Amino acid sequence: MNIQMIEAAAGRLRGHARVTPLLSSPDLDRIAGRRVLVKAECLQHTGSFKFRGAWSAVSALDPETRARGVIAISSGNHAQGVALAAARHGTGAVIVMPADAPKLKIDNTRALGAEVILYDRATEDREAIGESLAAERGLTLIRPFDDPQVIAGQGTTGLEIAEQALAAGVKAADVIVCCGGGGLSSGIALALEGSALRVRTAEPAGFDDMARSLLADERLANGPASSICDAILTPKPGELTFPILSRLAGPGIVVTDDEALDAVAQAFLRLKIVLEPGGAVALAAALSHAPEIEADTVICVASGGNVDPATFASALARLG
Amino acid sequence: MNIQMIEAAAGRLRGHARVTPLLSSPDLDRIAGRRVLVKAECLQHTGSFKFRGAWSAVSALDPETRARGVIAISSGNHAQGVALAAARHGTGAVIVMPADAPKLKIDNTRALGAEVILYDRATEDREAIGESLAAERGLTLIRPFDDPQVIAGQGTTGLEIAEQALAAGVKAADVIVCCGGGGLSSGIALALEGSALRVRTAEPAGFDDMARSLLADERLANGPASSICDAILTPKPGELTFPILSRLAGPGIVVTDDEALDAVAQAFLRLKIVLEPGGAVALAAALSHAPEIEADTVICVASGGNVDPATFASALARLG
Repeated sequence: MNIQMIEAAAGRLRGHARVTPLLSSPDLDRIAGRRVLVKAECLQHTGSFKFRGAWSAVSALDPETRARGVIAISSGNHAQGVALAAARHGTGAVIVMPADAPKLKIDNTRALGAEVILYDRATEDREAIGESLAAERGLTLIRPFDDPQVIAGQGTTGLEIAEQALAAGVKAADVIVCCGGGGLSSGIALALEGSALRVRTAEPAGFDDMARSLLADERLANGPASSICDAILTPKPGELTFPILSRLAGPGIVVTDDEALDAVAQAFLRLKIVLEPGGAVALAAALSHAPEIEADTVICVASGGNVDPATFASALARLG
Repeated sequence: MNIQMIEAAAGRLRGHARVTPLLSSPDLDRIAGRRVLVKAECLQHTGSFKFRGAWSAVSALDPETRARGVIAISSGNHAQGVALAAARHGTGAVIVMPADAPKLKIDNTRALGAEVILYDRATEDREAIGESLAAERGLTLIRPFDDPQVIAGQGTTGLEIAEQALAAGVKAADVIVCCGGGGLSSGIALALEGSALRVRTAEPAGFDDMARSLLADERLANGPASSICDAILTPKPGELTFPILSRLAGPGIVVTDDEALDAVAQAFLRLKIVLEPGGAVALAAALSHAPEIEADTVICVASGGNVDPATFASALARLG
């Protein structure tokens, strides 16, 4: 993994992924006690940054391999990213999803042209299903984060941040990134290596494996827990992503579900963007954990907006 | 009024107003039965396009006049635009607002540093209040739409649309614009004059003065009516804006409040942006009035996102 792979991915994404805006509001600055810039990846195709990594991986395949189709195991944003990237490359996508996934997500993935294969979470092994399908049909598995081309694709977000921060007159900043397996965080960290922009991860309480692993300098798993931040609930840091973050990232920040919902509400009120709780934890870190931050400026990556109406309404209700 | 004034305004706005993105979603294309592109002016500073016109007008004043301060009569988005433009120019703004304006808008205007003067819609004459304050304090009145520099500022949206449509491979389209007094519509129409992008106005039922006036070729007023589209409820087309639209715009489209709320919900679901009902009528026209449109592509200007949480929640509830 190196910056050249990210620059190559940026070349492949040009004209296909959106350059998302860097937003701000004087009200957020006031609440956070410092300058806050928000990279609105919820405005990316399929409503999250995942489209970048999916496009990067699918576009990097040799044409013959790509023509046989791709497969992903995901109930959420990665599924939609892979489905759209495959469809726009004129190839097929098989998405393995739990049978009890929300109907809207299953429908959306199908609407993007993917073949959805449902499995029973209690009795079936999704990895085994994925592997046997891949072998049977000659499909290429696109992993959600532990894949160099996926990390390179997510890293293109960092190249845009570097350019947009410069245009905004920002010389140094903490770049807070919503973190599940670490694909987005590690990609951005690589893209910003050597600059005065330092990545810090943000995670929900109970799923703070990356923050604890960075402290311990080894990959630690999460115990049993629950959170509304469904987009970023992963068991432990990735094999490829952790060494990158261990070398480049500052200390992780951990937020509560309530803090994430408050950030969803503030993004609605001040920025006019729709965030899902898992896509709002970086902003939540800036708004609710100011004492843990030293930089004069924070750039928060708002990683996704695929939230169901009821959850969003519950965030709005907190505005009173 | 001519294109040179709009280009000059664009020069003054550069680095101060945001270049807002042109968004899309395959789902919206499917619902509308044609390609739909959405110019997300809700992401503009202060949450609506009004900042453009306000900045244009304030920046065009000679420094001595500007230093005495400005005044605006507005219940909403124009107020916020003028307040921020004045503050960033280091001068004062007085905003005359009805006492029953949405609380969010009054609070936001104050937070932007403006002096808010409330009047009673039933018993007081806001024009008289504005004129006497302007005379007393030497303030310059910034009108919401019938001002050449305001129209020029709103027209910069059209310059961006032309460039972004080209980049998206759009050769011809109807550009549907949410229309109150016609400042945004007429500015965009002037910016796009001579291109294959034609402006059409969208208005809420009961406030379709522009649609009827365009048909009758004279300025007609609205009768008594009510609508949730508070941002664009004006009594009749502007003196300056109407002749421009009469010359350049296609037939107006009129939508119901329910159609506007459905468009708010679809923008949440498919684009991850927050729209107010009045800022969603152009998208509502594309989604609910397809038979009135002939162009293969529509570009909908989503003009603002300053909606209170309860109204937004009521739109989400329609998703079922």
